[in-house]
Amino acid sequence: MSTSVRLALAGCGTVGGALLTLLARHGPGITARSGVRFTVASVLVRHTALERPAALDRAVLTDSLDEFLSVPVDTVVEAIGGVNDAAHIARSALARGQRLVTANKQLLRAMGPQLAAIAREHAQRGATLDFEAAVGGGVPIVRLLRESLAGQGLRRICGVLNGTTNYVLSRVEKGASFADALAGAQRAGFAEADPSRDLDGHDAADKIALLSWLGFGVDPSALEVRTAGIAAGLVTDAVEAARRGRALRLVASAHLIDGRVVASVAPRVVPRGHAFAQAHDEENIIQLESESSGMVAVSGRGAGGSATASALLADILHSASPLP
Amino acid sequence: MSTSVRLALAGCGTVGGALLTLLARHGPGITARSGVRFTVASVLVRHTALERPAALDRAVLTDSLDEFLSVPVDTVVEAIGGVNDAAHIARSALARGQRLVTANKQLLRAMGPQLAAIAREHAQRGATLDFEAAVGGGVPIVRLLRESLAGQGLRRICGVLNGTTNYVLSRVEKGASFADALAGAQRAGFAEADPSRDLDGHDAADKIALLSWLGFGVDPSALEVRTAGIAAGLVTDAVEAARRGRALRLVASAHLIDGRVVASVAPRVVPRGHAFAQAHDEENIIQLESESSGMVAVSGRGAGGSATASALLADILHSASPLP
Repeated sequence: MSTSVRLALAGCGTVGGALLTLLARHGPGITARSGVRFTVASVLVRHTALERPAALDRAVLTDSLDEFLSVPVDTVVEAIGGVNDAAHIARSALARGQRLVTANKQLLRAMGPQLAAIAREHAQRGATLDFEAAVGGGVPIVRLLRESLAGQGLRRICGVLNGTTNYVLSRVEKGASFADALAGAQRAGFAEADPSRDLDGHDAADKIALLSWLGFGVDPSALEVRTAGIAAGLVTDAVEAARRGRALRLVASAHLIDGRVVASVAPRVVPRGHAFAQAHDEENIIQLESESSGMVAVSGRGAGGSATASALLADILHSASPLP
Repeated sequence: MSTSVRLALAGCGTVGGALLTLLARHGPGITARSGVRFTVASVLVRHTALERPAALDRAVLTDSLDEFLSVPVDTVVEAIGGVNDAAHIARSALARGQRLVTANKQLLRAMGPQLAAIAREHAQRGATLDFEAAVGGGVPIVRLLRESLAGQGLRRICGVLNGTTNYVLSRVEKGASFADALAGAQRAGFAEADPSRDLDGHDAADKIALLSWLGFGVDPSALEVRTAGIAAGLVTDAVEAARRGRALRLVASAHLIDGRVVASVAPRVVPRGHAFAQAHDEENIIQLESESSGMVAVSGRGAGGSATASALLADILHSASPLP
């Protein structure tokens, strides 16, 4: 006996495309193991004429948001980024009792709690909100915070959360120029076409705000994150740190201090033996410190189509627990 | 509006006692956040007269298994260890549609898939089987495998899975004698009174077998794990490794080779910069290698009452996804 799950996918860039490839590759195995068969019923793109993954049936492509929303599906995967269209898709899906899976940290920072409220309101009809891919790429930090560590005296969340910046810093350490390192990150699909939100720390700020929402229950749109990024000028700092056997990392952190969350993103020099220094290239690492469990660390590929798509797939396969 | 959840706890030793303390400490916060109120309705112990955590209402203590099983509850937490009574408790709970949370790796290795089948059979009535505390103490590896990475081309599971052994090796590296290091692990509550299953690798073998069940779908009781442990004689190896800037670690691994799982537990010398060498004292680290996500690593306290109890609490708070 097999259950059929109809998917709609908004966005077919690096991440959305990688998801289709992953589904084509692992779909039969998943069906064999769990009895769930996935069909992609609709894919929203900006340009229907562009080249797409071989796994995609072009008949389901549309560039019309209304048409995309009118196709009956069980799960909507949002990977278009940005806030406006994404918010419309998210609200529509949840209000119809569909499961929403999104990789969109900007959307969630702006209105995560509101979307969670809509999901709760329509939970009886099946609405769920999941976003493993929004933080940490292939690192399962969202689920970890939602399911394993929230409510147990969490005190601190701290880590390397931006794969592009870390790739640039790692490569510069090894002698690359800032421009070459950045071009490498873009070629590998880690960086956006405009990588300024990566480098200036705003991407990491959105992520630490989301993790603070999950871990401490604060509204991520209201959380002020003091943010400093890296720039071409910091290259010399990274090189100098490497020369002294140290490493420069862009570190995001959120501490619970007297019941208040204090969050920041800033470059930090750490010893080479430090866990953060061992996050190379696009890797992310997140440390969670709680009263009862002490320190738990989780690390892995923080960027890239395949790693991020695997986080979307984990969400598609399983729905997670209620949000704060 | 608050939901009431009645708990029964079998076993009130290091882990069970720590769970009661944790519930007393974090229960009010959990109720405030989630509306769920926990009451401990029954606690099964061997000796009702022994000293117990202050958080425990002695009126709920019983040394009768039949009496314990007759108290109506929603969730049964099994922390007595061993196989016989534990199996009886587990089967009874699941067959009555209760949620079973267990820390018992020996029980699960012997009959995990059978218990999972009973849980499935009674799932409509609410039966669930969870066991985050059975592997990795406070490291959320079970949930990670069940929810985030299974079915996505997992190829290898590898890591330091026994906190007692790692504590002994870490201390011996720093100059302690084998006997003193072991006594320290016992005092800290990491080791069993008879620590031979820790040191000879059988505890780690049970754990890698369970992870192989979750990750690869094999029957853990049928999986042969080639097992070598550490002994007093290995002390000189650990000291010698440390002298050469390396570290001796007891490493458990399971590889998927040509569709077959090959698993082992054995001492291994690793460079000091290696992730396994950075697991100090009772820490555990587990690396998961998959096709789509690359390497994901998770680390934290692998032993100790508080860390292990926090894993039980995570399971009590959330029920996980279906088992293979």
